[in-house]
Amino acid sequence: MITRDACAVLDATDALAKLRALFAMERVDRQGVIYLDGNSLGVLPAAAPERIRAVAEEEWGEGLIRSWNTAGWITLSQRIGDKIARLIGARPGEVMVGDSTSVNLFKVLNAAIAIAPRAGRIVSERTNFPTDLYIADTLARDKGCELTLVDQPEIAAHLDDRTAILMLTHVNYRTGSMHDMASVTERAHTAGILVIWDLAHSAGAVPVDVAAADFAVGCGYKYLNGGPGAPAFAWVHPQHTEWMDRTGWRQPLSGWLGHAAPFAFAAEYEPAGGIARFVCGTPPVLSLAALECGVDTVLAAEEYGGIAALRKKSLALTDLFITLVEERCAGYGLALASPRSGGERGSQVSFAHPTHGYEMMQALIVRGVIGDFRAPDILRFGFTPLYTRFTDVWDAVNRLHGVLESGEWRDPRFAVRAAVT
Amino acid sequence: MITRDACAVLDATDALAKLRALFAMERVDRQGVIYLDGNSLGVLPAAAPERIRAVAEEEWGEGLIRSWNTAGWITLSQRIGDKIARLIGARPGEVMVGDSTSVNLFKVLNAAIAIAPRAGRIVSERTNFPTDLYIADTLARDKGCELTLVDQPEIAAHLDDRTAILMLTHVNYRTGSMHDMASVTERAHTAGILVIWDLAHSAGAVPVDVAAADFAVGCGYKYLNGGPGAPAFAWVHPQHTEWMDRTGWRQPLSGWLGHAAPFAFAAEYEPAGGIARFVCGTPPVLSLAALECGVDTVLAAEEYGGIAALRKKSLALTDLFITLVEERCAGYGLALASPRSGGERGSQVSFAHPTHGYEMMQALIVRGVIGDFRAPDILRFGFTPLYTRFTDVWDAVNRLHGVLESGEWRDPRFAVRAAVT
Repeated sequence: MITRDACAVLDATDALAKLRALFAMERVDRQGVIYLDGNSLGVLPAAAPERIRAVAEEEWGEGLIRSWNTAGWITLSQRIGDKIARLIGARPGEVMVGDSTSVNLFKVLNAAIAIAPRAGRIVSERTNFPTDLYIADTLARDKGCELTLVDQPEIAAHLDDRTAILMLTHVNYRTGSMHDMASVTERAHTAGILVIWDLAHSAGAVPVDVAAADFAVGCGYKYLNGGPGAPAFAWVHPQHTEWMDRTGWRQPLSGWLGHAAPFAFAAEYEPAGGIARFVCGTPPVLSLAALECGVDTVLAAEEYGGIAALRKKSLALTDLFITLVEERCAGYGLALASPRSGGERGSQVSFAHPTHGYEMMQALIVRGVIGDFRAPDILRFGFTPLYTRFTDVWDAVNRLHGVLESGEWRDPRFAVRAAVT
Repeated sequence: MITRDACAVLDATDALAKLRALFAMERVDRQGVIYLDGNSLGVLPAAAPERIRAVAEEEWGEGLIRSWNTAGWITLSQRIGDKIARLIGARPGEVMVGDSTSVNLFKVLNAAIAIAPRAGRIVSERTNFPTDLYIADTLARDKGCELTLVDQPEIAAHLDDRTAILMLTHVNYRTGSMHDMASVTERAHTAGILVIWDLAHSAGAVPVDVAAADFAVGCGYKYLNGGPGAPAFAWVHPQHTEWMDRTGWRQPLSGWLGHAAPFAFAAEYEPAGGIARFVCGTPPVLSLAALECGVDTVLAAEEYGGIAALRKKSLALTDLFITLVEERCAGYGLALASPRSGGERGSQVSFAHPTHGYEMMQALIVRGVIGDFRAPDILRFGFTPLYTRFTDVWDAVNRLHGVLESGEWRDPRFAVRAAVT
């Protein structure tokens, strides 16, 4: 049996422990909350309130319109893009930041359809995050191509010459199951298929190297800690942006800030070179400023071994959580829904309960452990190694045990569904 | 000759003067700045810093993921949409808020193409804001229809059975010239043409009644004072959203938050009813919160006569500016580029200078009067009646006169072009 003291020793010797100070954890800790939902919305970075204040009061309030030049608003997206590039194996100038993940997926999916060496179906996973499937389904109907949804084990069998595009989310939002990006990409390429990766649950959480792939999109508000609804990002392989530069290909959301010379206000659209053509309208500067603070928290780990060190701690945290839940919460119907093998798992652990997962999660939240529930049966726990301690894991499982042992989740109030689950 | 004292009397008797306190004007005034660029980026509302702080520190920092329910983030866009509806003649539940103007134009233009009673060309103005033209041009190529750009006087002649869609910006961004929305819409409808209005330079500035039109989009960061890159909005006539509800039509950016039941995480897309199907991904909450403060500044005028009263003051301000410039700055090559008749003008005045408008504007900015320059020859001045005083107009013209009389704009430093103009 792993004791709390043993976890405290792990915290005391954790080289990454000091990164917790980069977050406004006192706002979380003083509520007695253990936050295991950074996979849905990352914690407020300690630097963000002052940065947001300065952007609002000084840059907007005093600099006014001049701040597009004097405060560098015009290059802010690009600067953040270059920072995100370091987290996903891309190079400076290859990542655009702005719009939402859904909108960016629409752009790169259009590009993939235009570039694909053959017409053919788009293959994705049935359990992919719904917005990816919705965007792809609507676009496939519009373009007269087929969207084929398969279960994970069937993917390999679909990498044949009837497929044009493989669109996958690297880490599954429900189970945390992680694809082997390099091997899947290689197999798809061998079959002449373009690959789009959604990094929503990967960027900032697990090692990512997109360089061999074709397109990637990702989310700013999960492991990048960019704040609620933070702008998203998109990456396109330089060989494809070079093709776009040669051919003048336009992405469909050809807004003015993706123009080669936006402030010439020319009537004719001429796309900017490289990834910049994927910019559309004016980005929300306040939210961008918060996103930069969030990305900076992840980059701060570079000094301590970077993503590799974060990954090591993340695996230790998630292994510990699985072990403790299975030791202490046995007999209550919870079954591990994430891969047991760390190598196949992102930075999250899910347990399934056949009938009462929702109520159990609500009762656990009232006990101060914030995870979330994904219908029909998933209790989902995210572990952000930047701020989650080994003792947090122990305390969270202890409280889960309390919820299950007491049966307090049977209180009817916990069955009331919230608007957002 | 109108004296400064006469302007001071106008300020002293201005019933709207107290609305200036809704803005952080002390940050502007203490720089000695007269801000005539609210048509590009509105001034910081006084309430915004505290609201943004609370969203960041309390809602994000303490409420964490729970704030989607407990702080009402999930209904924030809708709430702001209902507020904007009051400014444009729409009803509650008809306006969506999120994404950029460019992205929203893409959505409604797709809808218009789907709904238009006939295939045919899209007609717009050659001098429309470029992003509208870029989005329409790319979409027209994709859909195999024709985008026809005409000059303003030729519009009427193009309202025939070869045209399917008329897409106009209500107030021209360069000249401030304003269309008669009701009459243009009626003429287009008589010819069986759908009408899309871009309200970027109208919403919050001039009376708008979209109810007779088909679609509208608009910008949050100009006269709505929502902050840099604030989310935009879209309106669709209920007869069209009812058609969409009946037919299940999807807008192309069919993201998860526009689903009928987003938190069911269903694999199949089912669009939400009404305007909600035009929502795509997760909106940037910090920027939304600032936008709400901005919209509230305009709604605060309702107590003093609302948009009609703002319009009356706006016309008095712009008339005064034209009169004073023509009186005091004659002989320096400036020619009025806006309609002289107030009824044909938005809340902005532009003057053209054939050769040195850029340098003159830079020199004027150094003298503390912030307007902007639009190539090739336009000096552009916006007049937000919520915070612009009659004495501001007098002082601004006085400084412009100083710049012209001294010839200080000839200093070579003023010819250096900034990244953002």
